[in-house]
Amino acid sequence: MRLRKLKFPLKLNNQRPFDGIFCTLQAILAIIVIIIQTCIIIYLVDERNYEINESMKTSNNSSVQYINNKNNSNRTIIVITPTYLRFARLADMTRLSQTLMHINQLIWIVVEDAEQLSLPVKQLLDRTGLQYYYLAVKHRTGMPVRGWTGRDAGLNFVRKKFASMGSKAVVYFADDDNTYDIRLFNQYIRNVEKIGVWAVGLVAFNVVEAPKIRNKKVIGWQTIYAPRRKWGFDMAGFAVNLELLLRHPQAGWRRRCREHSPEPCLMNLLNVSLNDLTPFGVDSWPREILVWHTKTSNIHIRSRNTYGYNAEVSLQISYLILIH
Amino acid sequence: MRLRKLKFPLKLNNQRPFDGIFCTLQAILAIIVIIIQTCIIIYLVDERNYEINESMKTSNNSSVQYINNKNNSNRTIIVITPTYLRFARLADMTRLSQTLMHINQLIWIVVEDAEQLSLPVKQLLDRTGLQYYYLAVKHRTGMPVRGWTGRDAGLNFVRKKFASMGSKAVVYFADDDNTYDIRLFNQYIRNVEKIGVWAVGLVAFNVVEAPKIRNKKVIGWQTIYAPRRKWGFDMAGFAVNLELLLRHPQAGWRRRCREHSPEPCLMNLLNVSLNDLTPFGVDSWPREILVWHTKTSNIHIRSRNTYGYNAEVSLQISYLILIH
Repeated sequence: MRLRKLKFPLKLNNQRPFDGIFCTLQAILAIIVIIIQTCIIIYLVDERNYEINESMKTSNNSSVQYINNKNNSNRTIIVITPTYLRFARLADMTRLSQTLMHINQLIWIVVEDAEQLSLPVKQLLDRTGLQYYYLAVKHRTGMPVRGWTGRDAGLNFVRKKFASMGSKAVVYFADDDNTYDIRLFNQYIRNVEKIGVWAVGLVAFNVVEAPKIRNKKVIGWQTIYAPRRKWGFDMAGFAVNLELLLRHPQAGWRRRCREHSPEPCLMNLLNVSLNDLTPFGVDSWPREILVWHTKTSNIHIRSRNTYGYNAEVSLQISYLILIH
Repeated sequence: MRLRKLKFPLKLNNQRPFDGIFCTLQAILAIIVIIIQTCIIIYLVDERNYEINESMKTSNNSSVQYINNKNNSNRTIIVITPTYLRFARLADMTRLSQTLMHINQLIWIVVEDAEQLSLPVKQLLDRTGLQYYYLAVKHRTGMPVRGWTGRDAGLNFVRKKFASMGSKAVVYFADDDNTYDIRLFNQYIRNVEKIGVWAVGLVAFNVVEAPKIRNKKVIGWQTIYAPRRKWGFDMAGFAVNLELLLRHPQAGWRRRCREHSPEPCLMNLLNVSLNDLTPFGVDSWPREILVWHTKTSNIHIRSRNTYGYNAEVSLQISYLILIH
């Protein structure tokens, strides 16, 4: 009772009781707004900035890869590859790297889904002689597929690092287990002036998924998987000129489009229409498939003994302990 | 009764009845022996001679591939690849061909398990610029795995065609879906003087299967799959100098060793011991895996529509009709 007597006169000094309640409500409301705003800020900061845990670039900047390509435009191809630790990873990365080694004037952005880089992958990249950047970015929780973070981080890295290239570079997203015919790079990707699209083999239950063409323009997609989608292509089936990506710095993979597939997520943010697409490889006959959405079989491993061989298994064991 | 009277005096002229029975038995025995011998001859003819249904070689014999390798012995690498029609075949062959395109002084023997060659594969081989021979040999019934016939046919073709190379060539059996680090060819295979062995990744439930070494000699195999086998390696884990193969023209994959795995089948016929093996890649640290026994995932195809794209599907449909 003493406390009450002491407290109320202090608080309601020169005020009516009603004012006191109003004041408390105001304070509660303000705190709620602040909390909400703080959440929004945290969300936005998280959404806009990557924690690139570790980043690695080749020492050899004046690389032989910068020889101009004789038969094509002298655009640079920037390949973004999200990757993650698994038993077949070194094999998949070896195959992909040996494909890219045939292509000149190419920059390879490899984004590791981890808090640190993997030494065997770094050594593999060093051996290629390619100009590469190797980043470690842990995938964001709440994203539908882990590849979204890697691709988005790679894209933002490219925007910062290679802005000066403007229209003289084309960005292509290449997963490490797909199969790429070397003609894809010089005949299709290097010639993309805005957005280029082409057929992809062995994807979504199709032998081939391809753009549907009328009067040399894309009017839809030849596929059995939701053929009426506006952006009915696979990640491997398109490339974007860097200039367009620079003009839309927000475009990428955000949580807010997590209900969609990754392709429309990017396309909607680039604010393009079907009219902006240039189809490649539709005039030749028979038409050629230059990329396949292959996947290396899951391997049943009963012995993790490496007998001293370099197999990323020690990394894998600690990784498995971390996520379980 | 008349017949009997007529027949017996004719048959048993100047002979006792016992002689007649003996004679009949002799005849039956002779017929049985002839039948058995005929079967053996048919079996042996089938065993020794392939029906190479169709054979294709590159027009460009004076190939650039014959440039001597600077850093290594100038031995030629002969790669034998059995292949067969399936949805992922063009993808797998594309990846393998792009790996082999990094290697000079290499001859590629591709053996199609079919009665005729596949045009898309022929076109793929043409694009590589490699010196290749493309043979069509239908796999023999009674063989445990279809690859046996392809490898054996390739081996006999090599013996006939490249006998003059003698010890200046090494034969390696490379399946079309495995993953090969390009260092395997110049650092290991090209230096094989008799039989070379090395580690293979992701095989038989092991992260890696490798030769077990004591005093620089192979004394067994580091594996969890039957580690006491005399020849405990995978097809991808060894190469043989051509000279040894020429000295043992019978060595290959015969029906009589169908109870075994393919590796001991060849080794036993080559009449070699563990002492004849040279291990590669065991002195470096950490040791490196330069070949992985990968497999491309089976693809569930619901639409075979190719929309005019070159995908071997028309071939596949007629093939499926044939085997079902």
